[in-house]
Amino acid sequence: MPQGQPVTVPDDNLTTRQRRNRPLLIVHTGDGKGKSTAAFGLALRGWNQGFDIGVFQFVKSAKWRIGEQTVLERLGALHAETGEGGPVQWHKMGSGWSWSRKAGDESDHAAAAVEGWREIQRRLAAQTHDLYVLDEFTYPIAWGWIDVDDVVATLAQRPGRQHVIVTGRRADPKLVEIAELVTEMGKVKHPMDAGQKGQRGIEW
Amino acid sequence: MPQGQPVTVPDDNLTTRQRRNRPLLIVHTGDGKGKSTAAFGLALRGWNQGFDIGVFQFVKSAKWRIGEQTVLERLGALHAETGEGGPVQWHKMGSGWSWSRKAGDESDHAAAAVEGWREIQRRLAAQTHDLYVLDEFTYPIAWGWIDVDDVVATLAQRPGRQHVIVTGRRADPKLVEIAELVTEMGKVKHPMDAGQKGQRGIEW
Repeated sequence: MPQGQPVTVPDDNLTTRQRRNRPLLIVHTGDGKGKSTAAFGLALRGWNQGFDIGVFQFVKSAKWRIGEQTVLERLGALHAETGEGGPVQWHKMGSGWSWSRKAGDESDHAAAAVEGWREIQRRLAAQTHDLYVLDEFTYPIAWGWIDVDDVVATLAQRPGRQHVIVTGRRADPKLVEIAELVTEMGKVKHPMDAGQKGQRGIEW
Repeated sequence: MPQGQPVTVPDDNLTTRQRRNRPLLIVHTGDGKGKSTAAFGLALRGWNQGFDIGVFQFVKSAKWRIGEQTVLERLGALHAETGEGGPVQWHKMGSGWSWSRKAGDESDHAAAAVEGWREIQRRLAAQTHDLYVLDEFTYPIAWGWIDVDDVVATLAQRPGRQHVIVTGRRADPKLVEIAELVTEMGKVKHPMDAGQKGQRGIEW
């Protein structure tokens, strides 16, 4: 069972159970490693609890299929076969969002990012998933492609009990402000500093 | 394929391939969330590449079975059934190390931690696993139960191509010194600060 006592008990008229069950907005930011990896690790944990998982990758190349995608989709298939865990959907902007007719059109990244965000808004309204991983979602916000005020309003007002994890460097302060859990992954030392490139099983 | 160019190419007489394939010592430290979760995310990635995975949890309670254990052991079973991925072993100090006769004896945590470390030393010498997760291993070092010089000497001289991930707060500077990849997870904001306790699918 979970350990630890809150330092303060807020005056919010919620019971401990109600407070415990509030959906979380989680942000993994900073210049270090582990932002996405920890998010997919949380997806693993959620799968095990039967959560419906939706992953939305905003930046990674279409050709780039990371190990987590293979494994989480395999776990989603396992759910379909045996009922273990929960369903998993993995969507990538780089290869054209799978729900879109414009598959493969990478000519307008800004429009593709907005299209991804509109779909996420629809799913949040429909309460499609229990856990959303919006991987590298800070970048289209930082680049001004997606309006941070729209993001903040949508996330703050999302219905039901939907957890959302946002990863990427330079998270907008407005996003940090409304998040319940924010971790800054700081780079202390990285092998590329010593001239070592990425390797199989570690970087992908 | 992996992206990015090293800033400098070191004068170490290694080819890029040799340098790329050097085993890594990875440390996840700091007061924030995500240290263990990111380590288990890396284990997921390694499993997908067929790595033999060994997880050693040094502190967590015996009764505490985290979602990652269930999922990674399930993936290990999948490997045995179908050949997908790699084998997975998960050992916990809290329930008595599984290879030990002293199962369930929690009366001497220091002795149990040393026993775990001795087994890891044997496995490193025998090149048993491709990836070791030494979860919360910084604590028995910080508490003086395990000699940091012994740890550093063993890890620095480990044979073959064995990756090692160490998690936990207050990583010893000597361990950081020999590590290739060190990430500091910093706490920016945590729900317990606002009186919210842990919840299913997120904390476990």
